Amino acid sequence: MDLIDGNQISKAIIAELKEEVAGLREGKPCVAFIRVGEDPASVSYVKKKDRTAREIGIESRLTALPESVTQEELFSLIDTYNQDKAVSGILIQSPLPPHLDELAAFRRVLPEKDVDGFHTVNLGLLCQEDEDGFVACTPAGIMELLRRSGTSLEGKHVVVLGRSLIVGKPVALLALQKKEWANATVTVCHSRTAGLSGITSQADILVAAIGKPGFVTGDMIKPGAVVIDVGINRVPDSSRKSGYRLTGDVDFDAAARRASKITPVPGGVGPMTVAMLMKNTVKAFRRQHRPG
Amino acid sequence: MDLIDGNQISKAIIAELKEEVAGLREGKPCVAFIRVGEDPASVSYVKKKDRTAREIGIESRLTALPESVTQEELFSLIDTYNQDKAVSGILIQSPLPPHLDELAAFRRVLPEKDVDGFHTVNLGLLCQEDEDGFVACTPAGIMELLRRSGTSLEGKHVVVLGRSLIVGKPVALLALQKKEWANATVTVCHSRTAGLSGITSQADILVAAIGKPGFVTGDMIKPGAVVIDVGINRVPDSSRKSGYRLTGDVDFDAAARRASKITPVPGGVGPMTVAMLMKNTVKAFRRQHRPG
Repeated sequence: MDLIDGNQISKAIIAELKEEVAGLREGKPCVAFIRVGEDPASVSYVKKKDRTAREIGIESRLTALPESVTQEELFSLIDTYNQDKAVSGILIQSPLPPHLDELAAFRRVLPEKDVDGFHTVNLGLLCQEDEDGFVACTPAGIMELLRRSGTSLEGKHVVVLGRSLIVGKPVALLALQKKEWANATVTVCHSRTAGLSGITSQADILVAAIGKPGFVTGDMIKPGAVVIDVGINRVPDSSRKSGYRLTGDVDFDAAARRASKITPVPGGVGPMTVAMLMKNTVKAFRRQHRPG
Repeated sequence: MDLIDGNQISKAIIAELKEEVAGLREGKPCVAFIRVGEDPASVSYVKKKDRTAREIGIESRLTALPESVTQEELFSLIDTYNQDKAVSGILIQSPLPPHLDELAAFRRVLPEKDVDGFHTVNLGLLCQEDEDGFVACTPAGIMELLRRSGTSLEGKHVVVLGRSLIVGKPVALLALQKKEWANATVTVCHSRTAGLSGITSQADILVAAIGKPGFVTGDMIKPGAVVIDVGINRVPDSSRKSGYRLTGDVDFDAAARRASKITPVPGGVGPMTVAMLMKNTVKAFRRQHRPG
């Protein structure tokens, strides 16, 4: 069994981006982070993204809005960044407080600055297999993990557990594309799926993105399969200083006995998401400085 | 075995639309058809759509452009219809001659007049399960056929043969939605799929949209399955006056012996496509006249 090391692969991408950014003649890319409230996980994610941007040489701006901010105030900030030519990409850290309309906020970002890939237009471009669009960072990171670990999807059966707009659907659309490293047969399963283990056990590549700790047990995995665990669940653990540990959607020990390759949690898909955000920011910068 | 009668179901929809249009207070919906060249199939499709529009009470305009039209001239006509407040929806008859960029033409139509559902924004809205968008007529027609023939997809396994932007992908996205009459487990197969019949024979609902006459044989179908045949293939037939007959992607006689329900070709999905175009046109009119 091989571990697919997301830390190492994301480090390689970050190193490549650092070199690419150093060679840019038109200036430096800049990512603007918008965070609302003081949710500790959001604070920590934005900090991590900000640190990675600076490591690469991408400039960054962070606006932390109070929990009480109105939709209009949020829109107004987005509009400012939309108009600011120095800003290449805009990231609104999810989740927003419940009184704000998250989808409306994502749609307010100009598609060409939507480095999160959540805008309606970028989802449409993904359907159209148009490389000009931005693909959401987690699904893009999953595809990159597969590619860089030498896992071809061509003619393989990819089973995706979860149909979210953020992971399940875009992963399915990516794996299905008529492109090198894609061309897979794709099945999407979810909470309403009947006979789930009969389906997952046909998967050459199994992508678990349902947010239920340890949901995928060993018997659900085909011997030799590649397992991508997207879940990042906090499970209470009194032996840890933090009081919890992070665990995936897959029972790792049992899966590791059957899989040919598997991603750990943490250190699998998670770091890739940050790396792909940076890749999207550099792409946005390049698109905005494209001649013509 | 029950025949799913697309002629009858589309007639019911057309009758409903006729009543709905008669009751509209803000005026009459209007669909603008753009046809390029004199391809006999295109001429016949547009004629059929035009006749159906008039039957419902939807106004129509037809511009037939010469085969030699330039992209700029086509765009200019689209722009005219985009700006014309009397035009609710615009349909560009596909296929366009090879010197024209079809995708660019579809994208030139305002999303709110894109009754064909091919615009990037409408594909994105489909991913987002946003009912404000327009769904392409053939996939929308397939869902309507299933609903009106009492075929619930909830927890069922839908296998889609074909991954086109026009049929395969949108059908998959629709069947997957968290909505009544959807909620299916969905597999998309295509030319690169390995072990195809092993997958199709798991389908509770099999949708064939690959454009190969008689490709789906009886042994590929699970006994009791519902079979939707999207193919409209012209096969040479010297016994017919026209010299050809229309046949689907499914070997109908063999499939009929195993399926619980099946659509014929012609008279299955085909007439539904026209009916759904009309439904989209009325929806466009309503959206454009929505208060606020």
